[in-house]
Amino acid sequence: MKNNTFKEIAEVLLGAGKVLIYPHINPDGDAIGSAAAICRTLRNLGKTAYILIEDEVPDNLKFLDKGYTTFDHKITEDVDVSLCVDCGDFSRLPAREEKFREGKVTVCIDHHGTTENFCDYNYVDPQAAATGELIYALIKEMGIVPDVETGEAIFAAITTDTGNFQYSNTTRNCHLIMAELFDIGVDTNKVSVEIYENERPEKLMITARAFSTIEIIGGGRGAVAHLTLKDMEETGARPFETDRIIENIRSISGVEYAAFIKEKEPGVIRVSLRAKRRGDVAKIAADLGGGGHVKAAGCTLYMPLDQAVNLIKEKMEEAIKAL
Amino acid sequence: MKNNTFKEIAEVLLGAGKVLIYPHINPDGDAIGSAAAICRTLRNLGKTAYILIEDEVPDNLKFLDKGYTTFDHKITEDVDVSLCVDCGDFSRLPAREEKFREGKVTVCIDHHGTTENFCDYNYVDPQAAATGELIYALIKEMGIVPDVETGEAIFAAITTDTGNFQYSNTTRNCHLIMAELFDIGVDTNKVSVEIYENERPEKLMITARAFSTIEIIGGGRGAVAHLTLKDMEETGARPFETDRIIENIRSISGVEYAAFIKEKEPGVIRVSLRAKRRGDVAKIAADLGGGGHVKAAGCTLYMPLDQAVNLIKEKMEEAIKAL
Repeated sequence: MKNNTFKEIAEVLLGAGKVLIYPHINPDGDAIGSAAAICRTLRNLGKTAYILIEDEVPDNLKFLDKGYTTFDHKITEDVDVSLCVDCGDFSRLPAREEKFREGKVTVCIDHHGTTENFCDYNYVDPQAAATGELIYALIKEMGIVPDVETGEAIFAAITTDTGNFQYSNTTRNCHLIMAELFDIGVDTNKVSVEIYENERPEKLMITARAFSTIEIIGGGRGAVAHLTLKDMEETGARPFETDRIIENIRSISGVEYAAFIKEKEPGVIRVSLRAKRRGDVAKIAADLGGGGHVKAAGCTLYMPLDQAVNLIKEKMEEAIKAL
Repeated sequence: MKNNTFKEIAEVLLGAGKVLIYPHINPDGDAIGSAAAICRTLRNLGKTAYILIEDEVPDNLKFLDKGYTTFDHKITEDVDVSLCVDCGDFSRLPAREEKFREGKVTVCIDHHGTTENFCDYNYVDPQAAATGELIYALIKEMGIVPDVETGEAIFAAITTDTGNFQYSNTTRNCHLIMAELFDIGVDTNKVSVEIYENERPEKLMITARAFSTIEIIGGGRGAVAHLTLKDMEETGARPFETDRIIENIRSISGVEYAAFIKEKEPGVIRVSLRAKRRGDVAKIAADLGGGGHVKAAGCTLYMPLDQAVNLIKEKMEEAIKAL
């Protein structure tokens, strides 16, 4: 797999009049932050640019969306560039594939190891902690000093995908970018408060319920928690309010494999998997029809919740034996 | 208040044979990280150096203590330098004051705004996010490139005191130090896993209990949670395992003032206070005989738990009215 250069991609964008930006489905901080940063940069240059989405932006990321996102495929026609960010194949933009293909030129900027070159221009760097790192480099290659709002979006992208600079994907480059964002006047605490200190009390209630289900398995090297549809209904928690529970489960001492299992609908079970230092959850997820990174992956199972919990425990026990 | 220069303090340390290092009572990541970094540096130079403590190092920070800490005041006599780190007055080293004064020269390196020059040599910088930042600068001023273990301790100090680079005290300099730590080969994720992913399940259980007591006050701008001695006994949680609950309470949307109130003994109530963006909890804590920073402070109340909860709620309501 050969990447284009940032210079080539910068030229494509600088030469374009109309750009549509495609973050992945169920967008996270890196997807929305990366998309917002490049959208703002293109608009500052006088271009027509929108972020075309197919699901709602999570509440805690809405502050990054300053009129950029739209569900409307007709928002602009004759698109010069279709740019997908943090999104490596059509399965990650399923309801937007046709529109994406309409772009005269297609470009992919991504950091997922599973991404293959599927666009006219591609820059895929699995060593990057976040797509936001790559977007930042691209903006600089375009000859532009990011403004404060662009910087805020870059901070959001990088801090969320690195677990606030704690995950093993964090690099020297992430911190150097942060130092530059301080130089341009980004108030990182303001952004952080928006992302992380904007929780509804219902989130803490659903978290409390999940914690009370924690089971330790594999001689202390695995931990599993689950939530039922009823838990969600009784607490009034929203789906994305359970997103970080899996990180808490992984934080248990000695745990190398963590799972959080959630009943989305009867018979539709979403599984989030994490490894700590030595494990590999990408393999477990792939075996079950899912995907992701070595340390963070997931899958959807179509079976009753208790069966799903048992299946995941079995898979984790096997993986733990192989440690 | 006038600081000495790092150069002057570096010369004092380079000229010393025996150094005792004093972190504050109930030491946190910055206190232990800073103390460990300078202790290791001094030992690498062939000097006798220990960290004299008066309470246990928290479990999740024990990995930083590679034979540095001691409770033994007789561990070394004729001490050349008594060096207190992250600790600004004798009330923060009460059981060690006499030994501290025995040092031929006393030095203070601290970042608390309430610290006054009380040593022969002082470097107090309230703009520093962590004392670890100052220790890092001092080590460089001594002409030494930190080794990996020193770097790990510096990372621990800075990441804990900045809330993983999210708090408003985080500076450009914090990130530049991090980039340098990557250069010397520090595995920040390894350190982070030790600090944050080393929780006992009991911690998640006590957290769940605290979350279930959350009360929202002041029209949504305040939140209070509490724990009883009985909660601690029934879950088997250890005292320091409730340390981060206050950050979760502050994370609630719209909350500017957060309090976590804990019954340590019947009639002895520990109160942790946090402000988000606009509040000032140092004032509330000072009014109640405590102290701390604008965004993070605390006090101890001597009254039954329910009275303490009511008193804190009153104080918070007053502060919220003044926002």
